[in-house]
Amino acid sequence: MRLFQDPHAPNPRRVRIFMAEKQLGARGVSVDLVEVSINDQANRAPEHLERHPLGLLPVLELDDGRTLRESMAICRWIDETYPDPPLFGADAWERAQVEQWNRHAELELLFPIAQIFRNTHPFWEGRIKQAPAFGEIMRELVAERLAWLDHELGHHEFLAGDHYTVADITAVCALDFGKVSKLRLDPDVHRNLDRWYQQVKARPSYKA
Amino acid sequence: MRLFQDPHAPNPRRVRIFMAEKQLGARGVSVDLVEVSINDQANRAPEHLERHPLGLLPVLELDDGRTLRESMAICRWIDETYPDPPLFGADAWERAQVEQWNRHAELELLFPIAQIFRNTHPFWEGRIKQAPAFGEIMRELVAERLAWLDHELGHHEFLAGDHYTVADITAVCALDFGKVSKLRLDPDVHRNLDRWYQQVKARPSYKA
Repeated sequence: MRLFQDPHAPNPRRVRIFMAEKQLGARGVSVDLVEVSINDQANRAPEHLERHPLGLLPVLELDDGRTLRESMAICRWIDETYPDPPLFGADAWERAQVEQWNRHAELELLFPIAQIFRNTHPFWEGRIKQAPAFGEIMRELVAERLAWLDHELGHHEFLAGDHYTVADITAVCALDFGKVSKLRLDPDVHRNLDRWYQQVKARPSYKA
Repeated sequence: MRLFQDPHAPNPRRVRIFMAEKQLGARGVSVDLVEVSINDQANRAPEHLERHPLGLLPVLELDDGRTLRESMAICRWIDETYPDPPLFGADAWERAQVEQWNRHAELELLFPIAQIFRNTHPFWEGRIKQAPAFGEIMRELVAERLAWLDHELGHHEFLAGDHYTVADITAVCALDFGKVSKLRLDPDVHRNLDRWYQQVKARPSYKA
């Protein structure tokens, strides 16, 4: 398989961590990482637009040439093809819970944090239209959501319950992506969240 | 089961259409729709915050009292519990494709359209902070995405291929939700999209 990706972008990182948790290498499944640099606008080049008409990342290419877009579609396909360990939950109710929490991590953290970056960071100046006021609204939202998540993580070890799942992957990628926009956890305030963060960070997959 | 929902909001509608496609009523499964009006801020009342700490909709309550948040988590749970017809795909590759397209429908249509509404519509004035400039950026994005989708629907009958799936539900709820922000398909320009829209609209579930 080949994974077309940018090493600095959060969505490709979700897939890399997911693959590392599945230990694909140890199973003899080779995944070549092919860099498509957003900074160099390689994602807008005709070669990549053929893979993904919207110029987004990541894209997975199977050995038979089929391609799959969207990080969560890729992770779900890997989860079904290599079910162990189950990172989307082990039965119908658990899968529903994991989906609920993965969406909370996406909709309440990752997407707002991405909008802070897009709308307020100099990286995008002159590349896209920015609305800094929206970035600031999202910054306030994320502060509220971190307080809420901190409270929730006082009741369960991982986001979706007792097990590490794709929801934890989404959340850690979101938080790390926030650093470029000067968004950081305060270990004295976000005690539960920080406990969780240190735990997730200690997993070998974190470096993927 | 009880579905806590607002009849005017797009995410509860996704679940109502999904349930109608599964013909839960004909299977003897009763689903009570309980209105939680966003207009009346009933979603911010303590009673609802107990069901959903972020005050969002929909929430599904099972007969045993367990609750599930997030439209797609609810739909997935229903899909696993009542697998026929499969609306998330019938095998691993199909499920990956459906997830890809459902996410395209969400991320490229529904979420930007929701941001147009939130950031530019008088309904939200004084209720939330608005950034009209961001709404306009999203309006331009949606115009581009509609052109792209129109092109895609020249190659396949439904969003994810030959079958009606959850991706079509998401897309039709997005487009209808756009009407409140004066976003409309132009049948002379968006011919394929309009063909698809009329087809989806003709299904009995559309009225759910």
